[in-house]
Amino acid sequence: MPELPLERWINPEILAQPAYQVKISSHRIKLNQNESPWDWPQPLKEEVLRRLGQAAWNRYPELRPQGLKEKLAAGLSLSPEQLVLGKGSNEVLQAILRVALPPGEILCTLSPTFAIYRLLGEQQRARLVEVPLTADFQVNDKNLLAASKAARITILCNPNSPTGSLLPLELIERVARQTTGLVIVDEAYVDFSGVSALPILEHYPNLIITRTFSKAFALAGFRLGYALMHPQLAAQVHKGLLPFNIDVAAIIAAEVLLDHPEIVAERVRLIIRERDRLIARLDKMPGVTAWPSRANFFLLATPLGPRETFAQLAERGILVRDVSDYPGCAQVVRVTVGTPDENEALVQAVKELL
Amino acid sequence: MPELPLERWINPEILAQPAYQVKISSHRIKLNQNESPWDWPQPLKEEVLRRLGQAAWNRYPELRPQGLKEKLAAGLSLSPEQLVLGKGSNEVLQAILRVALPPGEILCTLSPTFAIYRLLGEQQRARLVEVPLTADFQVNDKNLLAASKAARITILCNPNSPTGSLLPLELIERVARQTTGLVIVDEAYVDFSGVSALPILEHYPNLIITRTFSKAFALAGFRLGYALMHPQLAAQVHKGLLPFNIDVAAIIAAEVLLDHPEIVAERVRLIIRERDRLIARLDKMPGVTAWPSRANFFLLATPLGPRETFAQLAERGILVRDVSDYPGCAQVVRVTVGTPDENEALVQAVKELL
Repeated sequence: MPELPLERWINPEILAQPAYQVKISSHRIKLNQNESPWDWPQPLKEEVLRRLGQAAWNRYPELRPQGLKEKLAAGLSLSPEQLVLGKGSNEVLQAILRVALPPGEILCTLSPTFAIYRLLGEQQRARLVEVPLTADFQVNDKNLLAASKAARITILCNPNSPTGSLLPLELIERVARQTTGLVIVDEAYVDFSGVSALPILEHYPNLIITRTFSKAFALAGFRLGYALMHPQLAAQVHKGLLPFNIDVAAIIAAEVLLDHPEIVAERVRLIIRERDRLIARLDKMPGVTAWPSRANFFLLATPLGPRETFAQLAERGILVRDVSDYPGCAQVVRVTVGTPDENEALVQAVKELL
Repeated sequence: MPELPLERWINPEILAQPAYQVKISSHRIKLNQNESPWDWPQPLKEEVLRRLGQAAWNRYPELRPQGLKEKLAAGLSLSPEQLVLGKGSNEVLQAILRVALPPGEILCTLSPTFAIYRLLGEQQRARLVEVPLTADFQVNDKNLLAASKAARITILCNPNSPTGSLLPLELIERVARQTTGLVIVDEAYVDFSGVSALPILEHYPNLIITRTFSKAFALAGFRLGYALMHPQLAAQVHKGLLPFNIDVAAIIAAEVLLDHPEIVAERVRLIIRERDRLIARLDKMPGVTAWPSRANFFLLATPLGPRETFAQLAERGILVRDVSDYPGCAQVVRVTVGTPDENEALVQAVKELL
C-alpha cells in the first residue's frame, strides 16, 4: 500500500500524538478502569429495558434532555440551566476546551493526572503547563497557584487520577479566586472522597465541576457525564456539543437509576472500607508500597517493578493498569478496588509475587 | 444576576454563533427531521433488549467496538480498518475537522446545505467557502470545481439536505481528483438515492464517506454513524474521537439489527414510491411547488410563504421544518416523507391551506 501524504491532510499536532490505548489481557478480575465492581440489580435493569422498549427508536432524542436535566439538577439543588450533559464527562470537557481554549493559551494541569486533559489540550494547540506533584503524589500549593494564575483554563482532577490524592477545598477556592481564567474540577471520583466544590460553585462564576455516571454510579457502559456551572457559561458550552448528543438509552437508564441513590451510597461505603483495608494490608508487606487514596483506586509498587507486577498479576487473571509511563509513576501500577473477594484474590496474588 | 466577563473566557467565534435549535410544536405527525416513520418491529427490539440486559452496564464498552466494525465492514466489502464509528455521523465529521482542518484553511461546502458543516467549520476557525446552488437547487459544476481546488476539506452532502438534489458520481470524482485536500461525501440519505461514492473509494485516498443509522436505518434514538476511508486516514481520525465513544446499547442494537437489511430495503422502496407520488400530487396544486428529490424529504413552497405554511400545518398537527433562513430557501419548508397515511394527511392539509 502506498504511503499517503498525511502531512498534507492531517494537522501536525495530531500526527505527533500517539493513539489512545488501554492494555488489555484476558482476566477474571478487572481492576484496571476504576469501574464499579457491581452491575445494577437485574430488576432495575429490567425496568430500564421495559421503558427503553416503549421508546420510539426511529426518532431523535431531545436536543438536550430536559427531564433528565431537571431530575439531576433537583438532586443537587441547582437549576437545570447550570447543567451540561455529555457522553461521559470527557465529552463535556472536550466541549469546554473547544469553546474556551484558543490556540496558544495556557492549559494548566497537575502532573501526573488524567491523560485525556493533555490530549485535548494539544488538539486545541494550547500551551500546556503541568504542575508536578511531590514524590509522594501531593500537590505543591505554591506551584499550583503560580502556574494557574495566567492560565486560560486550569483542570484539577479531585481526587486526582492516577494517584488518588486529594486537593483541599480551600486550595481550589484560592485557585478560582486568583486566576483570570476558568477552573474545572473533575469530580469523577467525588463519591469516594466526600470533598466536593459544589458548595462554593455559586461564589465563583469561573468554576466548573464535571462528574460522571461511569464510576460510583456503575453505568460506564452507557457513557454519561455532566458538568455544573454558571447558566451563562453553560449556554456557551452547549455550542461546543453536537445536537442530540445524549441517546435515548442513556437518558432512560439515568432517569430510572437516579431513583436509587441508596444502592450507590451503600456500595460506596463498602468500597471505601475495602480500599482502606486493602491499602493497609498491602503496604505492610515487605518491599511493597500502597499509597493512601481518597478514590476507588490506589497506586501500588512491588519489588518486581510495574511491568513485571502487571504481567505476574495478569498471569493470575488479575488485570490492573500499568501507569509507569505517567510522569513520576515509573515504579507503580494503579489498582481499582474490587469486591471483597476480588480484593482478597489480589492480596494473595501479591503475596505470591514476593 | 451580574453579567459574566464571557468575552474573557469564551472564544469570539463561539460567542458569535447562535445556539443550534429545532423548532418544535405539539404534533401527531412528525415530518421535520428526516427520520424513518417506522420503528423497528417489537420482536427485534426485544432481542436487542434481551442482549442488553445480559451486558455488564458497570463496565466500559470496548475502546473501539471491533465486532460491530467487522460486521459493518463485511457488509460493505471493506476492511474494519477503513471504518470509524461515531455517535451519529456528526461526531465522526467533527473528529475529521478536528484532526484535519487547521485555523485559516478553507472548508468548501454547497449552499444551502446541512447547517452543522458551517458550525463545525467556524469552531475550527476555518475559512468557509460556500458554493451556491442554482435557483432550482442544482449544483454548478464549474463553481464547485473552482472552489474546492485549494480547499483543505470539501464536504458534499449527497443527496444534499435540505434540497434533496443529487450530485452525479462523475462530479464527485472530478472534485476528488483535482483538489489537494480531503473530500467528504455525507451519504446520510444514500439509501434513497442509490448513488454512492463507495465504488470509487479505493481509487481516491483523499475521499471519505460518512453514513448514519439515523435515517433509513430507523435508529436515530441510539445515535450511531460511521465514516469510510483509507486505513491510514482512519487511524488519524480516531485520535479526534474520545475513547469509548460508542456505548453498549448502540453497539448491541446495531449488531442485532444489521442482520435484517431486508426490512430496511423494503421500507426504503416504499418511501421512494411515496416520495415521488407525494411530490407529483403537491406540485400539481395551484401555486404550490414541490421540488424533485432523491432523498426521503423534499422542499415545498405554497402561496402562504414558509412561516405561515409551517404554522398552518402545525395547527393541523403536522410538524415540518421551516428552512427559510437557509440561503436560497426564503420561500420553502422542508417536508420528510412519512407513512402513506401521514402523507395523505399532509396532502389534505395543504389543500385546506390554499
